[in-house]
Amino acid sequence: MTDDSATPGLFDALEAPIEASSVSTQKKTTKRGTKAAEPKAAAPKAAAAPAPRKRRSAEDMAATQREISVSEFFTKNRHLLGFDSPLKALLTTVKEAVDNSMDACEEAGILPEISVEISAAEEENRFRVCVEDNGPGIVREQVGKIFGKLLYGSKFHKLSQTRGQQGIGIAAAGMYGQLTTGKSVRVVSRPGKRAKATEFLLSIDTAKNKPEIHHEATVEWEHGHGTRVEIEMEAKYQKGLRSVDMYLKQTAIANPHLTLHFTDPGGEQVTYERNTKEMPPETVEIKPHPHGVELGRLIAMLKSTQSRSLSAFLQDEFSRVGAKVAKDIVTKAAAAKTGQTLTVKSYPSRIAREEATALHKAINETKISNPSTDCIAPIGEDLVLAGLKKEIEADFYAASTRPPAVYRGNPFQIEVGIAYGKPGGVGLEVTDEGRIRKKATSRDVVEDLVAGADEPIRVLRFANRVPLLHQQSACAVTKGVILTNWKSYGLTQPRGALPIGPMAVLIHIASVWVPFTSESKEAIASYPEILKEIRLALQDCGRKLGTYIRKGKRLKREFDKRNYIEKYIPHIGIALQEILDLTNVERDGTVETLEDVLHKSRKF
Amino acid sequence: MTDDSATPGLFDALEAPIEASSVSTQKKTTKRGTKAAEPKAAAPKAAAAPAPRKRRSAEDMAATQREISVSEFFTKNRHLLGFDSPLKALLTTVKEAVDNSMDACEEAGILPEISVEISAAEEENRFRVCVEDNGPGIVREQVGKIFGKLLYGSKFHKLSQTRGQQGIGIAAAGMYGQLTTGKSVRVVSRPGKRAKATEFLLSIDTAKNKPEIHHEATVEWEHGHGTRVEIEMEAKYQKGLRSVDMYLKQTAIANPHLTLHFTDPGGEQVTYERNTKEMPPETVEIKPHPHGVELGRLIAMLKSTQSRSLSAFLQDEFSRVGAKVAKDIVTKAAAAKTGQTLTVKSYPSRIAREEATALHKAINETKISNPSTDCIAPIGEDLVLAGLKKEIEADFYAASTRPPAVYRGNPFQIEVGIAYGKPGGVGLEVTDEGRIRKKATSRDVVEDLVAGADEPIRVLRFANRVPLLHQQSACAVTKGVILTNWKSYGLTQPRGALPIGPMAVLIHIASVWVPFTSESKEAIASYPEILKEIRLALQDCGRKLGTYIRKGKRLKREFDKRNYIEKYIPHIGIALQEILDLTNVERDGTVETLEDVLHKSRKF
Repeated sequence: MTDDSATPGLFDALEAPIEASSVSTQKKTTKRGTKAAEPKAAAPKAAAAPAPRKRRSAEDMAATQREISVSEFFTKNRHLLGFDSPLKALLTTVKEAVDNSMDACEEAGILPEISVEISAAEEENRFRVCVEDNGPGIVREQVGKIFGKLLYGSKFHKLSQTRGQQGIGIAAAGMYGQLTTGKSVRVVSRPGKRAKATEFLLSIDTAKNKPEIHHEATVEWEHGHGTRVEIEMEAKYQKGLRSVDMYLKQTAIANPHLTLHFTDPGGEQVTYERNTKEMPPETVEIKPHPHGVELGRLIAMLKSTQSRSLSAFLQDEFSRVGAKVAKDIVTKAAAAKTGQTLTVKSYPSRIAREEATALHKAINETKISNPSTDCIAPIGEDLVLAGLKKEIEADFYAASTRPPAVYRGNPFQIEVGIAYGKPGGVGLEVTDEGRIRKKATSRDVVEDLVAGADEPIRVLRFANRVPLLHQQSACAVTKGVILTNWKSYGLTQPRGALPIGPMAVLIHIASVWVPFTSESKEAIASYPEILKEIRLALQDCGRKLGTYIRKGKRLKREFDKRNYIEKYIPHIGIALQEILDLTNVERDGTVETLEDVLHKSRKF
Repeated sequence: MTDDSATPGLFDALEAPIEASSVSTQKKTTKRGTKAAEPKAAAPKAAAAPAPRKRRSAEDMAATQREISVSEFFTKNRHLLGFDSPLKALLTTVKEAVDNSMDACEEAGILPEISVEISAAEEENRFRVCVEDNGPGIVREQVGKIFGKLLYGSKFHKLSQTRGQQGIGIAAAGMYGQLTTGKSVRVVSRPGKRAKATEFLLSIDTAKNKPEIHHEATVEWEHGHGTRVEIEMEAKYQKGLRSVDMYLKQTAIANPHLTLHFTDPGGEQVTYERNTKEMPPETVEIKPHPHGVELGRLIAMLKSTQSRSLSAFLQDEFSRVGAKVAKDIVTKAAAAKTGQTLTVKSYPSRIAREEATALHKAINETKISNPSTDCIAPIGEDLVLAGLKKEIEADFYAASTRPPAVYRGNPFQIEVGIAYGKPGGVGLEVTDEGRIRKKATSRDVVEDLVAGADEPIRVLRFANRVPLLHQQSACAVTKGVILTNWKSYGLTQPRGALPIGPMAVLIHIASVWVPFTSESKEAIASYPEILKEIRLALQDCGRKLGTYIRKGKRLKREFDKRNYIEKYIPHIGIALQEILDLTNVERDGTVETLEDVLHKSRKF
């Protein structure tokens, strides 16, 4: 199959002594351009070849192959983590810090109060980001690793609903600061009143992916407990749809139990007060749900389990599996004609791959009840509505929370809220006396959240209560909205695009493991199960919206007709007065009667 | 700032002895649900609290914090690597294997001949992917790491144009196979005629990110040198726009020097013969370009350099810096009023951060010539056209290659090719005798590559000669096409969308480091420099297209008019014959004359 004719001198190269070639490798690293020249000199035979090439053998290549540190990898690929532009870097940093604070507070059962401060540094195009919380703090030994090592944390290995899950974010923010300013990260942490607060200055050794702590000292701190992180970085501050301001506003919507203070570079201060003292329902850590667990993972679990019997294994390592279900599974598996001998007593680690395959098949064919809801904490329809009403001016609101579902063994839950009606725009309502009148609206208008009447609707995406501001077009949530047929709910919708109208849709996915399309956690991967749930939730809200819109249109027609008639009633009155020679009182009486009749004749 | 009122009993928790809490941690891992129950029992004080919470202190959390193996991370996040669906997994696997083969062949100066075979495995929904090349092979010691370890390879640490760059792809494919079938990867490799071929069976220990070699043996192999990899995996095979077939076809377009054999699960065979024996121009590995190198990286380089003087450092570690430019930079840096003493003789590793900052500023303010082109190998306008013509039926072709540019210190180059005209559709042309006639087209029609007249145009995206089939909407290339104003070139274009028309656009980015939006390498990040170059290249082709379309429209009008007139000439002939009483010969002569006159009167 090889095409030697075209590669003269090839085999000399393949058999060439390793020294020779590794020499050339050294040259390369010391002098530029040498490499390009080499072949011409080194291989006269190559003259016949279409173009003189370097002749690198498997050995040459082996000499250059080595391990890549995860920090090196992400430094070179910082856009994967959301640090591709100075503007985005600022948002990502605030996001990662706030997410961690929220997680820590909730885990410790503390109502979160967080303050974010962004200030300009001396150097131009540089800002200092400070995020401070009233959380449980971090013990001395952990500070370095948490802020100075990628892929380190407590959230990755457990199945429970947290904002962070990768053990990358905040360390990456520090790494970006270091990369763009050369400065280290400052951390102050106090784990409880009896402990003293400690101050750290640290950076990452990217080649080793290890923290370097340059300075450590106990300091006075006014707060009883909490953590403060300060990062200076090359950044750009700007308001708008994808700004820090917007991220914080939406965070307030999705976290009504959070009090949030923000000071922008201009020194302007805004505070989002919590509107409930109730913490989100506590979620429990769960075992994986048997459905959708991959065969390879099952085999690994069989090897590593403590359980002494297959039945015990299934019940201990998975959620929603009791003795009966376990028995069903094993029976099914044994029934499969693979000439094997699986019983509920089989010793897990001795189960062969073929048997495991049958077991895996049996698991997915066995009916197993959905995961328990207590591992997920949706915001809840009431709070979704409250959040929307608090921040978004609209005429109509609806919300819908789906029951939990599963993808790849991970429980998740979708909830949707919609706000319809142009900001400051005027709806119509029917008064108690049956009159139609313009609805007055008092709340502040938030122009930036609800779209205009002729623009695509706004989509507010949340994952585990964290707003997602970037990569909307690549997100399963957006796909879900586009795939929904909004025409049947009274909105116009271009083919394959978002519907048009004065509307904002809030979509929240809560899960023990949110499948993001990249480490920057900006968009959600389109797993079919997730898409399906999103669409069902949207359809539910859509139906309510449809009813409202149709009613609105009817009201509008009525309203216009009545206005029209009412305009003429007085003239009719005058006409009658002249014809029947009525007194003014009689005339006005008649006019009133006519109007009453008119309103009584309403069709609804 | 803390909100104690809302968190009674909090501090008991924070000061709680570590044993107590770590006990609860143990409980958690052994019995399900316990955790949820605990607090109620454990903390009567909490009764007053809105909801009884678990009380986890900094110590509790510390107990659960640990390192995450990169393989564990990507197993859980397999969609990041392009393994989110069985359909995509198949494509990704073929892609990674073929990319590696191409890179290896080119590095060894071998004209690549690759065969891909996909066959159904015994188990349903499982396929076996085999990719074999005539490359240089892999030495024994490296096989394990290359196929059984993530983040390992030779391409990450150097700046040169290769298809692979992360050291993840093929190992991840093996990991996915292992995860979905429990089976290990089979590799056969022969590094040259004198060596024997060796067969390996291996898998990844995901907890350690280390290869496990289960079997190794020398085997007979008909090929003189090369590598063969076989992976069995849960997958789905299907033709269409994002299929393996399409990937291979487009690979053939972008790699005219490649001979590619493909056998699909149906046993159907197709071969793409190379249409040139000329290898792509050889690219040299380069040093980073000084512009866009981040301060942090500069500082690191200053620390680790061998050079004894600042001037030598700048010349040795960067491309395009000679003694003069180095001097300019240092002078600028010293001039900056930071009270420092930088000279060309300064000892690199002794340069303080403030000085480095000034140096960094000076570098970016100094004019430095663009990177040399020899580090990038574009396909070239001729071969782009050849490739398009070979595979795509159209009436008009144009291509444009931009000069190289730089982002973040990485050179890159954009080239664009367009094919316009409905597949099998008919264009118009002017004959030598000046007649307009319908253009006949003989080549096979490739319906699936050129869009229909009323659909959005097709965008064929390539990065370092690798076709990108997924995440089109998230890709800088697509953004570039959308941001281009196609109306001015005679196409219709909805606002913020792809233009409409029977057209395919090929866009290729060649770079020493392509910034992908995720490890699955499906879309390119929108660095402003890249977007700009894409638009410039598109505009160049667009202008040519505009001329063609306008001419086409003119021709069409002419053509219709002439058809109309020609229809009547014979009748005029007959009329004249009757009036002037001509013979048939005279009449036909007259008709001919009239037609000649008509054609001579053409305006172009």
